[in-house]
Amino acid sequence: MSADSGFYRALTDPRSIAIVGASNTPGKTTSRPLSYLRRHGWAGEVFPVNPTRDTVAGEKAYPSLHELPRVPDHVLIVTGASAAVGAVHACAELGVPVATVIADGFVGQEPESRYLRGELTEILAGSSLRLLGPSSLGVANLQRRMALTGNAAFADDALPAGDVFVASQSGSALGALLSRGAEMGLGFASMVSTGNEIDLSLGEICLAAVDDPQVASFALFLENLTHAEHLAAFARAAAERGKPVVAYKLGRSDAAAELAQSHTGALAGDDVVAESFLRSLGIARVTTFEALLEAQHLARRVPAGRARAPRVGVVSTTGGGGAMIVDALAARGAVPTAPSADTAATLAGLGVDAGHGALIDLTLAGTQYAVIKGVLDVLLEAPEFDAVVAVPGSSARFTPEVSVAPIIESADRSTPLAAFVVPAAPDALGLLRAKGISAFRTPESCADALAAVFVRQAPGAPAAVVAPPADARTSPLDEAESYAVLERVGVPSAPHVVVPVAELADLPVPAPAAVKLVDAAVGHKSELGGVVLGVADGPELARAATRIRVSVAERRPDLAVDRVLVQQMVSGVAEALIGFRRDPDVGPLVMVAAGGVLTELYRDRSVRPAPVTPEQAREMIGEVVAFRAVDGYRDLPRGDLDALAEAVSAVSRLALLDGPAVAEAELNPVLVRAPGDGVVAVDAVVSVYRS
Amino acid sequence: MSADSGFYRALTDPRSIAIVGASNTPGKTTSRPLSYLRRHGWAGEVFPVNPTRDTVAGEKAYPSLHELPRVPDHVLIVTGASAAVGAVHACAELGVPVATVIADGFVGQEPESRYLRGELTEILAGSSLRLLGPSSLGVANLQRRMALTGNAAFADDALPAGDVFVASQSGSALGALLSRGAEMGLGFASMVSTGNEIDLSLGEICLAAVDDPQVASFALFLENLTHAEHLAAFARAAAERGKPVVAYKLGRSDAAAELAQSHTGALAGDDVVAESFLRSLGIARVTTFEALLEAQHLARRVPAGRARAPRVGVVSTTGGGGAMIVDALAARGAVPTAPSADTAATLAGLGVDAGHGALIDLTLAGTQYAVIKGVLDVLLEAPEFDAVVAVPGSSARFTPEVSVAPIIESADRSTPLAAFVVPAAPDALGLLRAKGISAFRTPESCADALAAVFVRQAPGAPAAVVAPPADARTSPLDEAESYAVLERVGVPSAPHVVVPVAELADLPVPAPAAVKLVDAAVGHKSELGGVVLGVADGPELARAATRIRVSVAERRPDLAVDRVLVQQMVSGVAEALIGFRRDPDVGPLVMVAAGGVLTELYRDRSVRPAPVTPEQAREMIGEVVAFRAVDGYRDLPRGDLDALAEAVSAVSRLALLDGPAVAEAELNPVLVRAPGDGVVAVDAVVSVYRS
Repeated sequence: MSADSGFYRALTDPRSIAIVGASNTPGKTTSRPLSYLRRHGWAGEVFPVNPTRDTVAGEKAYPSLHELPRVPDHVLIVTGASAAVGAVHACAELGVPVATVIADGFVGQEPESRYLRGELTEILAGSSLRLLGPSSLGVANLQRRMALTGNAAFADDALPAGDVFVASQSGSALGALLSRGAEMGLGFASMVSTGNEIDLSLGEICLAAVDDPQVASFALFLENLTHAEHLAAFARAAAERGKPVVAYKLGRSDAAAELAQSHTGALAGDDVVAESFLRSLGIARVTTFEALLEAQHLARRVPAGRARAPRVGVVSTTGGGGAMIVDALAARGAVPTAPSADTAATLAGLGVDAGHGALIDLTLAGTQYAVIKGVLDVLLEAPEFDAVVAVPGSSARFTPEVSVAPIIESADRSTPLAAFVVPAAPDALGLLRAKGISAFRTPESCADALAAVFVRQAPGAPAAVVAPPADARTSPLDEAESYAVLERVGVPSAPHVVVPVAELADLPVPAPAAVKLVDAAVGHKSELGGVVLGVADGPELARAATRIRVSVAERRPDLAVDRVLVQQMVSGVAEALIGFRRDPDVGPLVMVAAGGVLTELYRDRSVRPAPVTPEQAREMIGEVVAFRAVDGYRDLPRGDLDALAEAVSAVSRLALLDGPAVAEAELNPVLVRAPGDGVVAVDAVVSVYRS
Repeated sequence: MSADSGFYRALTDPRSIAIVGASNTPGKTTSRPLSYLRRHGWAGEVFPVNPTRDTVAGEKAYPSLHELPRVPDHVLIVTGASAAVGAVHACAELGVPVATVIADGFVGQEPESRYLRGELTEILAGSSLRLLGPSSLGVANLQRRMALTGNAAFADDALPAGDVFVASQSGSALGALLSRGAEMGLGFASMVSTGNEIDLSLGEICLAAVDDPQVASFALFLENLTHAEHLAAFARAAAERGKPVVAYKLGRSDAAAELAQSHTGALAGDDVVAESFLRSLGIARVTTFEALLEAQHLARRVPAGRARAPRVGVVSTTGGGGAMIVDALAARGAVPTAPSADTAATLAGLGVDAGHGALIDLTLAGTQYAVIKGVLDVLLEAPEFDAVVAVPGSSARFTPEVSVAPIIESADRSTPLAAFVVPAAPDALGLLRAKGISAFRTPESCADALAAVFVRQAPGAPAAVVAPPADARTSPLDEAESYAVLERVGVPSAPHVVVPVAELADLPVPAPAAVKLVDAAVGHKSELGGVVLGVADGPELARAATRIRVSVAERRPDLAVDRVLVQQMVSGVAEALIGFRRDPDVGPLVMVAAGGVLTELYRDRSVRPAPVTPEQAREMIGEVVAFRAVDGYRDLPRGDLDALAEAVSAVSRLALLDGPAVAEAELNPVLVRAPGDGVVAVDAVVSVYRS
């Protein structure tokens, strides 16, 4: 555990707790934490703090934190926001390691909330106190039977203890996960509601938990990606230790609402950023809520870094159930896979006809232990499968020794094995889960979990990304300056020269040429009549410059056209758009799309955290449907997509550039030429930070 | 019930049953039907038939069907395929109304299977016997406690009786639905495994059930759409009676595998056909397995014909859970909807802040009965919502009288109300479902059910579609003949004249013109050099014809170029592709897409059963993303999409045309001109049936 994670023990495993604002009235939310600690039999010391009563729930109460016999490890503050500020201040004075604040009066842009938030921030800045919340619903350590929360979900008699660490930005999700975990036989180490993360972030807390021997894997419920750098550090540490992270993140569908202004933003400003960010960090992002828990065991069998859709073998004793999984896998982007000829021959030796498709249906061979075990043994050794799903039918209810036992007995092979249980069979699900096998209630969550777990990438070492200067403003460079910056990272542009209008003579580049207004203040040159195409020689060049001067003078008399950019016109088989920007949460991103209105309408693009290698850029290009048109589709001409990948990778390295740092870049279009002929940018705007 | 559904009583509610092949050995599949009938206490008369034993399971056995004391209503045949043929023959001789065949030796293309199938078909053709199967897993009437099946799922002690009729092309799916229904408190009227539908089809059986007073709604598990005309007749009858149909259909993801050869086929040949077919018939097609049952109650509250994505209000006592539903709804194409200003004002009067988004979060207002009931009362009267989802949190587990009771008490309003229960709360789910409220375990199935139920169209009266002549071959018409057929249904084409090459003189259409080879035998004119564009006058026309003659003579010396088609070249703001074909299962289809390679790569098109009205065609155009580019996107020119809709509707009416009947048509491209200027086809191939 790193030095700055000293808060972790006080947060999740304190020896002593004070509850500020503990109520004596049963049923009130503020009475719950004390009652939960007692009811579940937590072994530590509790100090109720209540200035108006001598006892709370029959226990001695203290008028203030200053009156406690000793400094508690953890102070839970259940008062309103104003009183909470005072209590946090007292915690800081006393040297309390961790305080948790439930009140939500610190949230939002009302003057009162902003003031209170400022107070909290100031107290924390001058102290060693670490704060969970505000708007946290608290924390529970189920191994220790400590439920330090007012969440009604913890009124349950059972606290399912286990080895999954839960961190949630939504407090109420904790209750859902707790009861669903209990129902499915999955237990938790600790559960933390991170609230507004004014101090301790979700990533920081999880990073501190990563070396906890009681934690085997993580389930995250995310609402946003604030403090993404902490999440990234945690994800890297978790991947190193082989402790998988599964995340359910809200906001899949905010796309329409969050369109950014710029073209690049319009293409990149949605959930695809979160998706790409999480995957690049080796986090399995599930899209079905049940898979967040159901995928835990499966994820432990698959190290981060497989980085591709899994080839899945499906074996079923119920044709319909097997077909459901095959269908769901394909719909989720996994690859239902038929046995190879070798494997089919081996199965035939067992008397099993492997059939023709991706489903090995044992209905005819019969629901018998020996058949199922034999087939699983073969499939789990077959190299064509990344994972195998066993699909028991009604036998799971009545004769688990026939159809469930072989799954359990085969689960220790190197190829991961999961189960989709077709009927309602809670006992069978329980048997499988108790043995550490991911067993799924629905075909959709099974497919979701498999796809999410396998597409995780191996989180690389953090790149030497240049952070944007604090409070810096950005300003665009002109086209020629933009090309110059792009050249520093190795992006080719079409040959061009900036010529003072007074010095125009012969065409300085091979004909035909484009002549363009060159002015950083102009975003859309064409709209000002600032572009003339197809210029063949010196006299035409002079005329073109005049046309531009006249046209710009009419529309923007404030602009002086002293020089023009003369660029060789080149042709390509396709157009691409490459973008670079810095997301306020997840940092630098690179985006590639094909040119044109349709690709915009289809939102057809790929986004990754920058920088990316050329190989990763080639994967990105493979994700853009439109590029298939120049990648050997029908008889259409091919484009140099390898060169495009080099260019995407180069643009992504803008993240590493300084002097000045690049805020944003858009290369639109980049012409993709025939294979071997490379790509060239023929327009570009780079914006940099100005201090 | 219609006259030809006389089989229904014998199928689902026989007074007497014979079991041919009933085994005396406990545990054998063939022993199960008798044991299930006895164990569940079915009240009718059973005759075991077994030629080798006097008794079976302690009951008197008969050596053959001919020896029975009377003709049974229903004969279940559990023997192998060969013996089953004999038993079916005996049934036909004796005048048995219905037989069910379990054996699967009739399936496939092996000579033995084909022979046995032919035998069965021949017996049925000459008799009044109706047959369920072969490869049926049987039938169960849960109201009568009759499980006439060898399916292990029916070994359960409980047979959940209720009012949902289940028909499944997958036998094994019955067991999953039975146990899942029992677990969730949903009961069934009858469950039928239709098997290979050599005689009784799924649609025919359901049509017969539609007037059964014990049946309130239908759940279909579909593997394919064979006998689609029966399914259509059933769906129309069900919609008339207000008995909803929910279907789960496999094959969502077969897209890639099932690409047809023709361009039209490539665009239309996948699951989108099934999706469109089911929706047009008022069938709610769900994509999550659990929704097949969970949506039953909801579907009863929503008549077919709402035909659009629902605007859904979401009210939650748990922020995270509410956000999950909002997210899932949007991801599934429903419309999470914020309260109107009026509604928000009314809520404010109750002390509830409606917030800013589509989620009304009562976390701050508090989980109190009066608050929840008051808010639901307001939302269920608000005109902006098509449906409301209530989202209880942990209170559903501990205080259902607070958060579940108001849902139950509000469920009789005209606006449908559903519930997503966030924690594991089986009791709350049970309470809600017992009151006929769709209560969902996952946000995904809740969103799925809402979307599927509301997008159902009202099935219209069947159109007077011209059936293709039996065994007819199809042949293409040439371009001019194709235009002539299209003109009969009202599709405009660009002005054109066919001119004998010997009689070429002045340009017979306004310049510029396209000159084209016109020959029904040539699919791709351009590849033979058969098209010359931009022809301005008579001399150019003569030269163009000569170029075409020379070029075709080189490549296809067998073709005589005696005449050419001269067509005025017109321009448009966009290109469309309109297709018509007859699907072997679902019948005539019309398809519209935008032109170009990208729309093909994106599979961006809309397909509907033909014919469609211009209004329906306009909806189809709205589903094609690419057309947004000419429907007011940015500053791009608009296209006459109303005229395109008229053209799509006209093409769809090819389904009604005879003399000869049209097999297939492809109009590619159709030029879409500016609004008011209409559309014109500038190339087309129509294929007709030749007897």
